[in-house]
Amino acid sequence: MSNTVRASHRLLTRSPVALPKSSGLDRQLQYAPGCLRRASTTTQNGRKKERVVILGSGWAGYGFARSLDPKKYERIMISPRSYFVFTPLLAGTAVGTLEFRAVTEPVRRLGLDHFHQGWADGIDFARKVIRVEANTSDDIASRTRLAIKHRPGTADKGALFEVEYDKLVIAVGSYSQTFGIEGVREHANFLRDIGDARKIRMKVLQNFEKAALPITSDEDRKKLLHFAIVGGGPTGIEYAAELHDLIRDDLKYTYPDLMKFVSITVYDVAPKVLPMFDKRLADYAMDRFNREGIKVKTQHHLMRVRPDEKCEGCFKLKIKECGEEEIGAGIVVWSTGLMQNPLVQKLESTVFKMPGSDTEMQLQKDAKTGGLVTDANLRVHMVPHTASSDSVPTQGQKPTVLPDVYGVGDCTVIAEMSLPATAQVASQQAVHLAKRLNKGDIDQKPFKFRNLGTMTYLGGWTAIHQSSADELRGWMAWVLWRTAYLTRSMSIRNKITVPFYWAMSWLFGRDISRF
Amino acid sequence: MSNTVRASHRLLTRSPVALPKSSGLDRQLQYAPGCLRRASTTTQNGRKKERVVILGSGWAGYGFARSLDPKKYERIMISPRSYFVFTPLLAGTAVGTLEFRAVTEPVRRLGLDHFHQGWADGIDFARKVIRVEANTSDDIASRTRLAIKHRPGTADKGALFEVEYDKLVIAVGSYSQTFGIEGVREHANFLRDIGDARKIRMKVLQNFEKAALPITSDEDRKKLLHFAIVGGGPTGIEYAAELHDLIRDDLKYTYPDLMKFVSITVYDVAPKVLPMFDKRLADYAMDRFNREGIKVKTQHHLMRVRPDEKCEGCFKLKIKECGEEEIGAGIVVWSTGLMQNPLVQKLESTVFKMPGSDTEMQLQKDAKTGGLVTDANLRVHMVPHTASSDSVPTQGQKPTVLPDVYGVGDCTVIAEMSLPATAQVASQQAVHLAKRLNKGDIDQKPFKFRNLGTMTYLGGWTAIHQSSADELRGWMAWVLWRTAYLTRSMSIRNKITVPFYWAMSWLFGRDISRF
Repeated sequence: MSNTVRASHRLLTRSPVALPKSSGLDRQLQYAPGCLRRASTTTQNGRKKERVVILGSGWAGYGFARSLDPKKYERIMISPRSYFVFTPLLAGTAVGTLEFRAVTEPVRRLGLDHFHQGWADGIDFARKVIRVEANTSDDIASRTRLAIKHRPGTADKGALFEVEYDKLVIAVGSYSQTFGIEGVREHANFLRDIGDARKIRMKVLQNFEKAALPITSDEDRKKLLHFAIVGGGPTGIEYAAELHDLIRDDLKYTYPDLMKFVSITVYDVAPKVLPMFDKRLADYAMDRFNREGIKVKTQHHLMRVRPDEKCEGCFKLKIKECGEEEIGAGIVVWSTGLMQNPLVQKLESTVFKMPGSDTEMQLQKDAKTGGLVTDANLRVHMVPHTASSDSVPTQGQKPTVLPDVYGVGDCTVIAEMSLPATAQVASQQAVHLAKRLNKGDIDQKPFKFRNLGTMTYLGGWTAIHQSSADELRGWMAWVLWRTAYLTRSMSIRNKITVPFYWAMSWLFGRDISRF
Repeated sequence: MSNTVRASHRLLTRSPVALPKSSGLDRQLQYAPGCLRRASTTTQNGRKKERVVILGSGWAGYGFARSLDPKKYERIMISPRSYFVFTPLLAGTAVGTLEFRAVTEPVRRLGLDHFHQGWADGIDFARKVIRVEANTSDDIASRTRLAIKHRPGTADKGALFEVEYDKLVIAVGSYSQTFGIEGVREHANFLRDIGDARKIRMKVLQNFEKAALPITSDEDRKKLLHFAIVGGGPTGIEYAAELHDLIRDDLKYTYPDLMKFVSITVYDVAPKVLPMFDKRLADYAMDRFNREGIKVKTQHHLMRVRPDEKCEGCFKLKIKECGEEEIGAGIVVWSTGLMQNPLVQKLESTVFKMPGSDTEMQLQKDAKTGGLVTDANLRVHMVPHTASSDSVPTQGQKPTVLPDVYGVGDCTVIAEMSLPATAQVASQQAVHLAKRLNKGDIDQKPFKFRNLGTMTYLGGWTAIHQSSADELRGWMAWVLWRTAYLTRSMSIRNKITVPFYWAMSWLFGRDISRF
């Protein structure tokens, strides 16, 4: 089914008019009868430009939107948050090395035709319409948690409205997976968004202030200043390293007498941390952590987190390997595991019929990750509906392409390709899709992943870097870490501000105000 | 009563030891019996240096603490917040021209002997002991409002502990006065602290996002985008100007179709705004506002603020002069009126006896403002206790000086001197007191106020400036406004960051992300 047919089909129902690119107000406002007059300025397929609606403002959605040619397409983005977060530097903001604003890019600066602050609540693939739930929440706390609590389809629903598309790009990303462990959702801190980073930063400084009070016992000081990080991937390791830098470079001088109570522990269920690195590099990282006094406990399973009723602001961690005795901690940072976005789960369980067909269809679900399956051209797959409880197609049932619907980033899996759920993959997919849509050859050119290597900061001006070609460690890797992130840091504004903050933190120390 | 007598009196009860200056942990921890051994290193009056305890971290308290010689005095600060706010630039942070952090200075950077995050809950002038309520609240929202709700002496009390002093500086400042107007405390935004500025910034951007939703009616758009400012002093006028800059320079391009719904109104009960300026300058300001479309309604009395149940996030303002019809507004910024700090009220109603005397004394209260009365040497006055309900001394009852207790800033009034409650006065008093204590001649040299003039930013690169010598208006005053604030901005760090942010805002526009 061609785009022309789809667009003129829609023309019969509602006829939006082409607005100038910078028009900030919603197109829907123009759906009044009088507007039909202006439809004469549109081309034969209903409007001058095809409308591409992008769901999400992360590495995939934001990266796609900024690469798509605004002369060729009308760009509309739907996302619960109005900014993109440069996630590799998030751990740095959580300890005050960087200002929060330096790692965000407001999506409205992309000059989109429109941005709707909200969640996609459902998609009618036959009508090519997205139902959007507005996000007008005044709660600016951790959106990770907010999203878990108030996700579309649960209570406290925002106002609903519809947005039409010609082409749709699903780039909604993933949520944090808590594996149902008691207390994690309520008491642990995540590290996925600016709100999370701010919360962690406040809690760390708050705990130091509490420990400094003359009325606090030494026992409680040890609990308050035990920083537990669950998950030994790059995020957890980098946060431990940044936290150690903050304590060693700054807090040591502010609270010299508290230093003897401070401890940092990284817990992981696997036998080794940083699984994506070669043994030599991972060993180097562990050596550094040992020397700095950061404990790494592999093969440790967190079973429960609960508040310590005897020590305000502290938690008790039940660890399988530690028996009945619970470990006291002042903060629990959770940086392990991803789960599918509720929208993806909803879409996968929805059965629909395409216009002109009586076959019941549903989206193809990846058996392992639960993500949406796409082909190598990033086009979303659909399969005939089966009565079985999960929608994995039976063998021999051939998936077909759902017209005009694309998927990029963490919420998707390319059939027969095994790629990690990383920013690098999402970013490359986004740019590929935008370029191919700009050229009009998306159906011909498949996506190919180019592995640029992995980097992790280890604290104290050292890092590790690994790619297929080489490996680096120590301060040379650190220089690469800083410059690599800098060149990928997106706007010119942040290309100036990020090194500025680094220099200011180096010259004057990190800011330790709590507000 | 000399300092030596007082200090040795205290030596009999508890003997603190002199700790190195950088010691971050509380002195109280050292009050164990074993510590008496170390008391041999102290001088004849109990310790090497006299301990000066400072209550407050505003213009008065922070300014005093940074000017007091750490070689001569042990400096201890008690304040509910761990930073100083450079208030003249606060309005700029509330619209995103400046980063929040650029207008704060962490007090711990002063290298104080100790900082206690808490409120002074009471003072025993006879024992020279302060009772402190720890502030370990995790709530980082508007501390103005927080302080109103959870002020010392009400419910939700934090843990209490005591701190001794040799000399005491009361610099606790004032609270916002709401004149008991219904709904102001609950629904209005204040503009006195970083938390306030952040809340205002979020609410403004949130209202634009709500107004941009396709489901919002034009009527509600008008309400959401009506910004009401109550109080026509410099703070209110500057916020109106900064808000107008934000809308004209930035939001106009992001939400072009919403511009027709935007309005800004300044309400004041007085017949003219900016009463501290000459008529010519005030008229110039009003001309500018007229041209920019900012409405100024003088002689208007706000009677009530309540939520608009028909428009989520909007408020209804009842104005005496507008009859029964209520005015819709998306945000109410309250910038008028000061009231005394609860500690000051508590101290004024407390009766005490000084050691060696049987006369019941109380602090002298200024009849007009309710502030603590000091002499021209900034020494706090006491008077014999009278049975009358207010503690204003009867004529002929001569006040005496309360030994070793000083008062600076908004919470005090110098007897027979009429000074405004401004940052300039507080700052000059603080520096005077510190210098005189450093030299040891506080009893000889009285404080003299040197009026450096008043400045107010009017938006669009214009300002007004008035001093006894001259007056300035337009862009020349604006240049003075920026450079004057810059040279007074305290740390080198912020002397670099403030112009950096100004340049970035000028080059790239203000950040409009909401987080």
